[in-house]
Amino acid sequence: MVKTDISGVVPFISEDKLLSLSGEALRAHELLESGAGAGGEYTGWVRLPESPDRAELLRIKRAAERIKNDSDTLVVIGIGGSYLGARAAIELLKSPEHNLLKGDTPKVIFAGNNLSGAHLGRMMDFVSDGDFCVNVVSKSGTTTEPAVAFRLFRELLEKKYGRAGASRRIYATTDRSRGALRMMADSAGYETFVVPDDIGGRYSVLTAVGLLPIAVAGLDVERILEGALHERRALSGKTAENEAWRFAMARQALYRAGKKVEVLACFEPEFRFMGEWWKQLFGESEGKNGGGLFPASVEYTADLHSMGQYIQDGERTLVETFVSFESPERLRVPEDAGNLDGLNYLAGRSLSEVNRIALEATKEAHVKGGVPCIELKTGAITEETLGALVYFFEFACGLSAYMQGVNPFDQPGVEEYKRNMFRLLGKPGF
Amino acid sequence: MVKTDISGVVPFISEDKLLSLSGEALRAHELLESGAGAGGEYTGWVRLPESPDRAELLRIKRAAERIKNDSDTLVVIGIGGSYLGARAAIELLKSPEHNLLKGDTPKVIFAGNNLSGAHLGRMMDFVSDGDFCVNVVSKSGTTTEPAVAFRLFRELLEKKYGRAGASRRIYATTDRSRGALRMMADSAGYETFVVPDDIGGRYSVLTAVGLLPIAVAGLDVERILEGALHERRALSGKTAENEAWRFAMARQALYRAGKKVEVLACFEPEFRFMGEWWKQLFGESEGKNGGGLFPASVEYTADLHSMGQYIQDGERTLVETFVSFESPERLRVPEDAGNLDGLNYLAGRSLSEVNRIALEATKEAHVKGGVPCIELKTGAITEETLGALVYFFEFACGLSAYMQGVNPFDQPGVEEYKRNMFRLLGKPGF
Repeated sequence: MVKTDISGVVPFISEDKLLSLSGEALRAHELLESGAGAGGEYTGWVRLPESPDRAELLRIKRAAERIKNDSDTLVVIGIGGSYLGARAAIELLKSPEHNLLKGDTPKVIFAGNNLSGAHLGRMMDFVSDGDFCVNVVSKSGTTTEPAVAFRLFRELLEKKYGRAGASRRIYATTDRSRGALRMMADSAGYETFVVPDDIGGRYSVLTAVGLLPIAVAGLDVERILEGALHERRALSGKTAENEAWRFAMARQALYRAGKKVEVLACFEPEFRFMGEWWKQLFGESEGKNGGGLFPASVEYTADLHSMGQYIQDGERTLVETFVSFESPERLRVPEDAGNLDGLNYLAGRSLSEVNRIALEATKEAHVKGGVPCIELKTGAITEETLGALVYFFEFACGLSAYMQGVNPFDQPGVEEYKRNMFRLLGKPGF
Repeated sequence: MVKTDISGVVPFISEDKLLSLSGEALRAHELLESGAGAGGEYTGWVRLPESPDRAELLRIKRAAERIKNDSDTLVVIGIGGSYLGARAAIELLKSPEHNLLKGDTPKVIFAGNNLSGAHLGRMMDFVSDGDFCVNVVSKSGTTTEPAVAFRLFRELLEKKYGRAGASRRIYATTDRSRGALRMMADSAGYETFVVPDDIGGRYSVLTAVGLLPIAVAGLDVERILEGALHERRALSGKTAENEAWRFAMARQALYRAGKKVEVLACFEPEFRFMGEWWKQLFGESEGKNGGGLFPASVEYTADLHSMGQYIQDGERTLVETFVSFESPERLRVPEDAGNLDGLNYLAGRSLSEVNRIALEATKEAHVKGGVPCIELKTGAITEETLGALVYFFEFACGLSAYMQGVNPFDQPGVEEYKRNMFRLLGKPGF
């Protein structure tokens, strides 16, 4: 369902050169499937679409119905992989302004991903007016940011609904059997969902971690999983025709040729948080041992009028990856008799056509300017497409990281600031 | 008002080496003040805070009052410098969720900065329910994205309020005397505000371009200009003590030492769009002739759990610039008898203290990991601080670009995709 167009790479790296990496891609593919590679204990996401936990899925859908019925707002408390995927999916499928637009599902807000008292205070004020629930997402339950936010929101719930009422409004997505949040949930009787042991945070959006908030937003989680399953099947061939191989091979060939930054570009503003999710996925998987493409994202055409100058004319260390969707022909450019703006040559044409042409024009300009461009072509923005795109990126990321010779599933560098912080805060044991 | 702390740079570049650039900084400073440098005809922003157009300011405040009285929503139509500054200021001073939070000022939404029919359609649906006004911001009036959106929103206004009623609800910020939008405004009788000839888009937030939307959001534009004026005075000294020199010298020394990417980091989520504004300012000013630091931004602590791994351990081509604010002590970590999350060692401490320590811990970790860190320290998040920070960044950017040997005020690379697009769209003359 996702097609990798590398015609904008070929002027920089020959197809032969790209194909010469297919042996490496094959080995990486086999490592992902066998779990025999570095971090192989975290490859549960690879087969997940084939056999999702049906009982859990049913409970997710029931919990979502309950939350829709009894709440004006769902507060999702989580950081990193515990919120980016859900937020990205909801924004892509609904809108970055989804909470502002009219709808019959609860607002979904995200907290516990920073330590700003000003921001957290505003979120607490916001929910206080109506009824709300909390979905706290944490494997351990001890990560500072979500743990602080959870204490505060739990207090708010208890003030409003009493202790038992609060417990009925808390949904914990956490470890199956261990950890602080599991113990709190079991003791207070929260409904719980599972963060599987064999799936790391940034690969977890298709588990309860992502699916519960997505379902509360009124989206069809079954269709997301179907899309992922189709994509898994589409990526099963162990040949250089495999679209994920092509993406991984192009990225690694360009990286080895000296490129340092990958810019992910999309022409739909709804994609912004998919860019954030993608940055964690690729940055955390590949950015280690002093290597990896630095992931950045832009939102076109807006950012053609900001980052466009740099991408066209700045340091030639960039790679650009476009994600394109089929767009519905919703609006057309109106005719205007005065035509002072000179726009009548577009009158009657759909915005989706103009937007598609803007993409072609941008690719052409950037290739000419010395930026190799990859285009990932997919379908209309639907649940199935989201599922396919998520699976495509996860699989391609696993391939690419193994080709780069790193463990796609660890994040040793994240501990460094935490150790400092605990020491400076005087945490016992640090 | 903005202090440049380069203690996190000194382990990488000696102070002597940094100071050796002060001759270049002096020449750049003199070029900015004299207007004798490349693009000098666009240095109107340098003295703007000393003599803002008082009559225009009064009209901005009156128009804002009118819009507050007669509208539920203000639609700001503009792209690049014609919306980023206003959006950044409103989000920083109010919240990225400002439209969601209760308040007595109109919602402010931004359109005309992309060609997505789906997104534009949602924005049109959104405003249709209540009363709305349009502020169209375009020097020429012919830029494709805002011109298309303006046709559509004008049509919507005319359907709702009739032709004359629509004209009373359109505020055009445009050229003083020329161009398509000026002609349309004069012929239809829109109230107009001026994009000065000597101030380019990315340096224009302290003109009507930024100030009208900011005033409609209920913020005090006089205080913003006062902050900018104080900052201008603080940056008047032509010595290496000048805080903008120090920032520019550190950036240029690091760039010459082989650094390729500058990551702007802030620990307040309200800062996100300031990061977008900053990326245009620096990326468009310096990203030319095959050079310049690639500007990226992160939102901490959230992104410590996504981009943090790369910044700690990825390619060592990064520079990091932190922007820190004094935070009010709004929330404290609650005590919890159970303490299953192990957080009681923080009980009673304010989030602002914990957040500040997270910043220190991060800087220390990143410096140790091989990333030179600059910290820009400023005051609490207020209108004055915003004005100061805007002026600081603009001035430092002008200095830094001149030191790099490029024109800080042109953007030749932005034309490339436009020419392609017009040709592919069949625009007459292309």
